[in-house]
Amino acid sequence: MYKITVLPGDGIGPEVTAQATRVLAASGRRMGVEFCFREALIGGAAYDAAGHPLPEETLALCREGDAVLLGAVGGPKWDQLPVHLRPEVGALLPLRKKLGVYANLRPARVFPALAGASTLKPEVVSGLDILVVRELTGGLYFGEKKREDIPGGQRVTETLVYTTEEIRRVARRAFELAGKRRKKLTSVDKANVLESSRLWREVVTAMAVDYPDVAVNHMLVDNCAMQLVRNPRQFDVLLTENLFGDILSDQAAQLTGSLGMLPSASLGDGTALYEPIHGSAPDIAGRQLANPVAAILSGAMLLRYSCGLEEGAAAIENAVTAVLEQGYRTADIMEPGKRQVGTAEMGRLIAELV
Amino acid sequence: MYKITVLPGDGIGPEVTAQATRVLAASGRRMGVEFCFREALIGGAAYDAAGHPLPEETLALCREGDAVLLGAVGGPKWDQLPVHLRPEVGALLPLRKKLGVYANLRPARVFPALAGASTLKPEVVSGLDILVVRELTGGLYFGEKKREDIPGGQRVTETLVYTTEEIRRVARRAFELAGKRRKKLTSVDKANVLESSRLWREVVTAMAVDYPDVAVNHMLVDNCAMQLVRNPRQFDVLLTENLFGDILSDQAAQLTGSLGMLPSASLGDGTALYEPIHGSAPDIAGRQLANPVAAILSGAMLLRYSCGLEEGAAAIENAVTAVLEQGYRTADIMEPGKRQVGTAEMGRLIAELV
Ligand SMILES: CC(C)[C@H](C(=O)O)[C@@H](O)C(=O)O
Ligand SMILES: CC(C)[C@H](C(=O)O)[C@@H](O)C(=O)O
Repeated sequence: MYKITVLPGDGIGPEVTAQATRVLAASGRRMGVEFCFREALIGGAAYDAAGHPLPEETLALCREGDAVLLGAVGGPKWDQLPVHLRPEVGALLPLRKKLGVYANLRPARVFPALAGASTLKPEVVSGLDILVVRELTGGLYFGEKKREDIPGGQRVTETLVYTTEEIRRVARRAFELAGKRRKKLTSVDKANVLESSRLWREVVTAMAVDYPDVAVNHMLVDNCAMQLVRNPRQFDVLLTENLFGDILSDQAAQLTGSLGMLPSASLGDGTALYEPIHGSAPDIAGRQLANPVAAILSGAMLLRYSCGLEEGAAAIENAVTAVLEQGYRTADIMEPGKRQVGTAEMGRLIAELV
Repeated sequence: MYKITVLPGDGIGPEVTAQATRVLAASGRRMGVEFCFREALIGGAAYDAAGHPLPEETLALCREGDAVLLGAVGGPKWDQLPVHLRPEVGALLPLRKKLGVYANLRPARVFPALAGASTLKPEVVSGLDILVVRELTGGLYFGEKKREDIPGGQRVTETLVYTTEEIRRVARRAFELAGKRRKKLTSVDKANVLESSRLWREVVTAMAVDYPDVAVNHMLVDNCAMQLVRNPRQFDVLLTENLFGDILSDQAAQLTGSLGMLPSASLGDGTALYEPIHGSAPDIAGRQLANPVAAILSGAMLLRYSCGLEEGAAAIENAVTAVLEQGYRTADIMEPGKRQVGTAEMGRLIAELV
């Protein structure tokens, strides 16, 4: 029996997590494994109901569970709150920090059935399969921030800290994952300017000797942003610090042209966190227009990394591929000649095949 | 008479600056204006000859001149030097800081004759014309950097500082430039996480009332990296802080598929700096394979921004377009059915038309 904490959150979050739990339940039945889903409030929904975007009970439930499945947080409704009460700074960042999920895995994969969705030429992106491993609990995001008045205006000072151990633990994950994939690791930094990047590069270089089967190269972040446009298929695993990973993983995701398909996992040494990479999309919330596949595939990652149920993960991934090949599409990936279905119907079709 | 300091630098730098000065000289003859070119050492070449990548005499010559035209610096030969003697940290960053060139203009333009060179579909990039205005003398690049030993390894701390005035002066340039273009300014930040970004957004928002003809929007940097892939033609002027601009301007440049065509200008309140965005490309140096157009167009920007010679700038830009339309190509942009020419020949063709 696995206890899964479900945090539907805001916007389309509730719609897509509902389909993800439905598919997880179906895969549980198939494998003879039981999942117990426990819901809690987060984000704007939690602020509205309880006055804080990350209530103590939510955090407690997350810590107790075997894994956390998150929908999405945020929306214009809560953008004017004091910073510490906004869904991002008040909920998402502290949740990551408190769960200690330092390794954020963001696959960017082009599904054969959706190859035409990219703005890049098919010969550049077909078969694309990149895994971004982003450090998630350090760097500028979590450094001290100070704002002072000075003559003529203000001055803001922020700090960026990285330690050897923070780099090592996320790099270890990236090496291990690369070893199970195409055995190529590209470590991204700005070592020609930043001291933290020079430490990053030293640590990764020193670790490489322990993973002789993985080919490592180092790339400057500006060059990486170029290479992702020029020839993205040169990459297998991309390892980055927090802010670079934020930017590059979104760039890589958009190369596929179908953000609604992309899951993520955030792993540490305890309970892990799974969420679709798309946001809360308040404009389409509640209208059965959202694509639940990213959330469903986040569920597959949950089976793989938190439950060790590789078979169940693969079954979900295969079901997604099959449903796409049968021609079913949600609104965001609709093309002429295909059959458009709503959020719940897409979930049902996938659950049925699992 | 304009005094132009020429810093050929390393790799293909000398080859491309030679063609840029040739074209500038031709345009001077046409306009009845005289240019006096004075060369100085920078980068690895300066280190080899004088023991430092940015000798005092070079800096003095830069300060005295009306403008600086730089080729490129760096190469594997100098990558193992102590950080402060490497071409980037030892020459490029201090040159920017000492000249006070806080506004880095990086156009990313698709030339009609080269539309096919992009990895993006032609319907997504044809006619693309983005101007990135990047803050160039602040932020993480110039913050304090500290490395300490701690139990089990090391810790690096870097600081990022921005003041109201630093933001205002670069934003002013961006507003003015947008007003002369398509009147759209997108200010990029990470205001949902960084305090410096929140200050950035406040300053830009407050300035917007002074430029009622410019439409301003704010975009998070991760979303911007996505939008540059999804629909790059939505952008006119992109305003960014230093590190975001480093990443996004290279991404935008690569959208065009022809980096060898893209110039840049770095403006402050004194002598300005002009350079192609491509690097020193040591692998092709000295073989007449480099594309001199980026350096030549940097010369056009020099006429526009340092000499107020708009007519001369336009004449160079038109000559480049015409030579491309006549079918001449350097190796980097060669296509079947076109005529391949070397670096100097390309310079000669453009100079002739000016
Ligand atoms: C919402 C924001 C704080 C977050 C981040 O920057 O980490 C998001 O962009 C992401 O990538 O998960
Ligand atoms: C060489 C490096 C220091 C420089 C930068 O990061 O500014 C370069 O990438 C650029 O964009 O001009």
